[in-house]
Amino acid sequence: MADSPEAFVPGHVTGFFSSHAHDDPARAGSRGAGVAISDGVTVTVAPAEATTVTLDGDPVDVEAVSRVLDGLGATASVAAETPLPLGAGFGVSGAMALGTALAASEALDLAHTENELVGLAHRAEVAAGTGLGDVVAQARGGLPLRLEPGDPDHGAMDGLPARGRVEYRTFGGLSTESVLAGDTDDLSAAGDRALEELLAEPTTERFVALSRRFAEATGLPTTRVERVLADVAAAGGAASMAMLGETAFALGDGLSAAGYDPAICRIDNAGARLR
Amino acid sequence: MADSPEAFVPGHVTGFFSSHAHDDPARAGSRGAGVAISDGVTVTVAPAEATTVTLDGDPVDVEAVSRVLDGLGATASVAAETPLPLGAGFGVSGAMALGTALAASEALDLAHTENELVGLAHRAEVAAGTGLGDVVAQARGGLPLRLEPGDPDHGAMDGLPARGRVEYRTFGGLSTESVLAGDTDDLSAAGDRALEELLAEPTTERFVALSRRFAEATGLPTTRVERVLADVAAAGGAASMAMLGETAFALGDGLSAAGYDPAICRIDNAGARLR
Repeated sequence: MADSPEAFVPGHVTGFFSSHAHDDPARAGSRGAGVAISDGVTVTVAPAEATTVTLDGDPVDVEAVSRVLDGLGATASVAAETPLPLGAGFGVSGAMALGTALAASEALDLAHTENELVGLAHRAEVAAGTGLGDVVAQARGGLPLRLEPGDPDHGAMDGLPARGRVEYRTFGGLSTESVLAGDTDDLSAAGDRALEELLAEPTTERFVALSRRFAEATGLPTTRVERVLADVAAAGGAASMAMLGETAFALGDGLSAAGYDPAICRIDNAGARLR
Repeated sequence: MADSPEAFVPGHVTGFFSSHAHDDPARAGSRGAGVAISDGVTVTVAPAEATTVTLDGDPVDVEAVSRVLDGLGATASVAAETPLPLGAGFGVSGAMALGTALAASEALDLAHTENELVGLAHRAEVAAGTGLGDVVAQARGGLPLRLEPGDPDHGAMDGLPARGRVEYRTFGGLSTESVLAGDTDDLSAAGDRALEELLAEPTTERFVALSRRFAEATGLPTTRVERVLADVAAAGGAASMAMLGETAFALGDGLSAAGYDPAICRIDNAGARLR
């Protein structure tokens, strides 16, 4: 075993979702659909007397990461690196939590199964209030469908077979906490409808179209994101908004075909893993 | 969409298992543990008036593949390529069934979810009598634990976080059908005990050690496989036998360290995927 094992966790862009609160974080979560991308978070963990956490070299305080280390009864030096912006709808906090769980268990020889580590990271992220469904989606990879909310012992997942290019353009962050803290009944009803329709016609084209309709229904897209989505549609493509961030995404080359200069990556089919 | 999409399905070596028969193939299967490897099966599917199936260029009749195509209501030209030997404990028939399901659904625009396609391939493999747990393990990748038997709607999976090298040496085939058709009560009791012990101490080292103990208990290793396992142990390594084939495997470099010239590949964390 290496002294400083490394975990890679894909970024995850949610297209639509419904929010499911529960007193037990193992049963809380979200239903919905998203895409795991090859731009992700690499987390390196080394045993240490006191815990330190850095993101791209800068000290950060990520509650979900602290909660994971507490759950493992561990202290460690955690170093995360990512090309993704924090708070812009890519699940970076969830990826840091899950990457910490995987790499810390390996670094400290803690002998946990994948479900145990994914569950720990999911519960940490839910308890921190920073996400509801990214962790289980990032663990699976591909184009994950969250059929039922919760950790691996309580939730249920499926996926759409998918491959190929993903493009995105980020303008900045939206606060997940503030959206999820508000009244989410209408949003959740729209998310549940979208999931039902996607399961009736499970294709990647339908996923993007339903995501776009969900975004319109929620009123969350900013003017800048709305303009990108309209430009991509005018060019014959399809794009939608990352939930929750001021970010437009497309499967294929929708953004570049519409004249934008997007970040380009791919669908990550493998999901979170040691490497 | 490409006219001839390609799916890759990792090989899968089972270390230990218990057999669970059921009249409903969706509920039949196995519990146990194995490893998904980067030597696998690439399946290319093109629409065709009449079905043809080839393996490494030669026409073959693989019942699980025919059943998958029947289940999809499709006829197609299926071409599988693999460096793995058929019938030697690598789950090649399951990989062909699952790869056919993934690639045919894409080639013919059939719009199925991953669980639907994995379930279809699992039921086809069980009904054909050629395997019980390879398909769901190959879909997951990594070091899959089959906690409960059955397709994705009925079974339950976990995994051990793992990475790195896998070595194997094959002498030939054992008939899965004939072993599974016999009295499997003792074998299954040993497999269930091994799974319980692995879950109590979920490490890759324990996986190989419990696999070795299971192999000894079943009496399945041939003299040639037994000699490899003994030589690896004498050199300080750990190896076991692929269930079911005349094949020895090791995580890490156990076989080459003992002076063998094994096939070398890696743990495949991604599982079955379009590519």
